[in-house]
Amino acid sequence: MKRLTFLLGAVVALAGVVAYMAPAFGQADGEADPIFGIKIPPGYRDWRLISVAHEAGNLNDLRAILGNDIAIKAYREGTLPFPDGTIIARIAWSYVPSEENNKVFGRAQSFVPGSPPDWYLQFMVKDSKKYAATGGWGFAQFNKDGKPADEAMLKTCFPCHVPAKDRDYVFTRYAP
Amino acid sequence: MKRLTFLLGAVVALAGVVAYMAPAFGQADGEADPIFGIKIPPGYRDWRLISVAHEAGNLNDLRAILGNDIAIKAYREGTLPFPDGTIIARIAWSYVPSEENNKVFGRAQSFVPGSPPDWYLQFMVKDSKKYAATGGWGFAQFNKDGKPADEAMLKTCFPCHVPAKDRDYVFTRYAP
Repeated sequence: MKRLTFLLGAVVALAGVVAYMAPAFGQADGEADPIFGIKIPPGYRDWRLISVAHEAGNLNDLRAILGNDIAIKAYREGTLPFPDGTIIARIAWSYVPSEENNKVFGRAQSFVPGSPPDWYLQFMVKDSKKYAATGGWGFAQFNKDGKPADEAMLKTCFPCHVPAKDRDYVFTRYAP
Repeated sequence: MKRLTFLLGAVVALAGVVAYMAPAFGQADGEADPIFGIKIPPGYRDWRLISVAHEAGNLNDLRAILGNDIAIKAYREGTLPFPDGTIIARIAWSYVPSEENNKVFGRAQSFVPGSPPDWYLQFMVKDSKKYAATGGWGFAQFNKDGKPADEAMLKTCFPCHVPAKDRDYVFTRYAP
């Protein structure tokens, strides 16, 4: 019985680790987006940082913009247009005050990532042939359960990026 | 003369690239901090993301918190205390509205990294023996020219981190 308890404990502990390693949100083996056929790229959370931002208003998020190796190289070398194979990831978290930090600062000034919002993950994937009709970019958006945005929403991506045509339709600048 | 002009052009172009590759701020070959002996760790800008934050008030910055491989592994596995060799980097940029993004959104909502502030770079380095007197952590802060903070400022680091003792004196939580 003791051994069984130990084994059960080990299984529970292991399940805990596995659950941590594969969180419900951000899973990389999910559905492809319905227009551009993009899935969540495996390992995107290990990519290097391009920049950070805060969107107020309805979005009310804190966000990190990460890039795969091709993206980072292009950004650092100022290469435009971005080469095929570039992937830019945008992770957003809801924008929440940090009570524990504010206690230390002695006033309300600290805002940190909260829960993942509906617009949790976005990706821009460069393939100048495949996505020629949308500036060479495929767009994808996933919620925290890995579910892609629908066609209607994805159709709004490219028109919104057109004002950044001079920078190959990418808004985010590299933060040194 | 044509050849000289070409050569000069090439030299200027090359100088531009070199200037980009080795920006004045964030240089890794500078002075060590006067209490803990920490230099800016080479390659810190390539480290993976732990989290992001916005500090309002006097700091008024957007910040990214990055970790070396030991830090990221410890965060993801929930290891406390952090193992020796852990380095946590904090990069801050001044918090500025993005006029170009706001035009697209149709209202003032977008805040992005501006110029590097005086408190541009901070590092926490774990060495439980060397830094035993300050919870096992060495603290360092550098301005955009790579100049370390003075002793008086560095002495304020550890006392401020004491409220986070339960999390090994580290405020930042991992953002999934």
